[in-house]
Amino acid sequence: VITVLCANPALDITYRVDRVTRGAVHPVGTVHRRAGGKGANVARVLRQLGEPVRLVAPLGGAGGEEYAADFGPGLVTVPIAAPPRSSVCVLDEHATVFNEPGPELSPDEWEAVVAAVLDVRTDVLVLSGSLPGGVPVDAYARFVTAGVATVIDAKGAVLAAALAAGPDLVAPNLAEAQEILGTDDPYACAAELRARGARGAVVSSGPDGLIAATAAGTWRARPPRVLAGNPTGAGDALTAALARGLAGGAAWPDILRDAVATSAAAVGCETAGEIDPVLHAELVDQVVLEESDVADHHR
Amino acid sequence: VITVLCANPALDITYRVDRVTRGAVHPVGTVHRRAGGKGANVARVLRQLGEPVRLVAPLGGAGGEEYAADFGPGLVTVPIAAPPRSSVCVLDEHATVFNEPGPELSPDEWEAVVAAVLDVRTDVLVLSGSLPGGVPVDAYARFVTAGVATVIDAKGAVLAAALAAGPDLVAPNLAEAQEILGTDDPYACAAELRARGARGAVVSSGPDGLIAATAAGTWRARPPRVLAGNPTGAGDALTAALARGLAGGAAWPDILRDAVATSAAAVGCETAGEIDPVLHAELVDQVVLEESDVADHHR
Repeated sequence: VITVLCANPALDITYRVDRVTRGAVHPVGTVHRRAGGKGANVARVLRQLGEPVRLVAPLGGAGGEEYAADFGPGLVTVPIAAPPRSSVCVLDEHATVFNEPGPELSPDEWEAVVAAVLDVRTDVLVLSGSLPGGVPVDAYARFVTAGVATVIDAKGAVLAAALAAGPDLVAPNLAEAQEILGTDDPYACAAELRARGARGAVVSSGPDGLIAATAAGTWRARPPRVLAGNPTGAGDALTAALARGLAGGAAWPDILRDAVATSAAAVGCETAGEIDPVLHAELVDQVVLEESDVADHHR
Repeated sequence: VITVLCANPALDITYRVDRVTRGAVHPVGTVHRRAGGKGANVARVLRQLGEPVRLVAPLGGAGGEEYAADFGPGLVTVPIAAPPRSSVCVLDEHATVFNEPGPELSPDEWEAVVAAVLDVRTDVLVLSGSLPGGVPVDAYARFVTAGVATVIDAKGAVLAAALAAGPDLVAPNLAEAQEILGTDDPYACAAELRARGARGAVVSSGPDGLIAATAAGTWRARPPRVLAGNPTGAGDALTAALARGLAGGAAWPDILRDAVATSAAAVGCETAGEIDPVLHAELVDQVVLEESDVADHHR
């Protein structure tokens, strides 16, 4: 089983309006509500792929019940006092987003989250997205040192703090890697993430594909053609595919081909957490994979 | 007891942001959530004034539970399938509002609302705000013909359809009256609302005060000084005070002085449904009341 921790879940609310105008009253045409947060998107993709998955999320209040009802099977709710935050996305031709701050967790609530994650023997643990308030910035490191095979998709101080604990794989996008590493070369980023402690690093940059630096080698993998669309969904699908590949013990070239195809197959889907299985099947054999020794120059 | 029907309740959500920019991602500083809708605001003011009040609202889902928990005592929930709509108000120096459409009620659900309203003998019934989908536009008329003393604060087709049934009092603002009557003279509006069937009409126009046309006479009542602020709160506080005056059997001049003072005492409060009791006490003796026979010319 793959366990996904969504430490800071969000109810994703999408409004369709004619045009967002500051200071105006907007009648909303359609409303869509769903259980979101990066971890939830990762878990949805794994579920769609038929992979046994547990999504652990701290949830309270009426909003927590709505979240649980929407996500459905596979969710392990850790009861907390506060309801999940909402993220409101207002769509006209653009997306105007309002992100609520998450709740503050008490120390006991966070201990209950940790216990729920470690409760079941898991093949791979995915730590995806931000941490809620009240939780130390190096909280992800604790799971790595607990000996669980770990894939981390985080950014900023949370990612930086997790590296030193030696996670199996970190998978930031290029902008996130650049933010903490100071270089915009994806090979250099991937190598530096390993130098700082990660056993493997995948740095993605949208249609340019990804750079993977591992103990077994360094690869570049990219989709056969440019697919424009939903970048959040693509990142979460990439993380899901990487976790699935590690859990299955596949070879890196196969993991990377599948990961690029899975990510590209999410780009065309309007909501994060879905992939187009036909597109995935079509792309997986067309992914362009190049082994490289460039990363060695940066080590 | 005063019964207030909030047929289309809303969870009012307020976000504070730096500046609303179309197409941008906005971290939200503070989030405030409360049980809203015009009827709820009217009932809150009555509760604050110590008046026994029942608020009847159709509510479902987790959002309905949140609504009930927030409103607290006095709420009569009519269980329905759908959760209440939300209304998101994003504050910078302006207010940018996103109003979700309300749920569609089934015929059985609406019958349950009607039964809950008429279940208890009530001194005055307040019908405030819009109707949800699935309910006929003349739905308010049914309560009037049931013989309950009725105060209606509605607009558009809902107000127009209610007039013919002969409600005791209608209380639109001038813009709402103008919309269905085609004149912008408040005396003419008040007289025409009576001519169309209302036994009494109060037409408010913010700092200019109100015109009241009744069987006992026509008055203009206005606050002693201009108070700028929250117009939604002022309108709902006015409705609350009018209902309280009718329930208590006060004379029109006293009802109108109190109503203007109550409305003005809401203007300074940030959230609708509250009044400043000190300001109310200060203003009630200073309200400028003029009896007029102008309305006779329009009858």
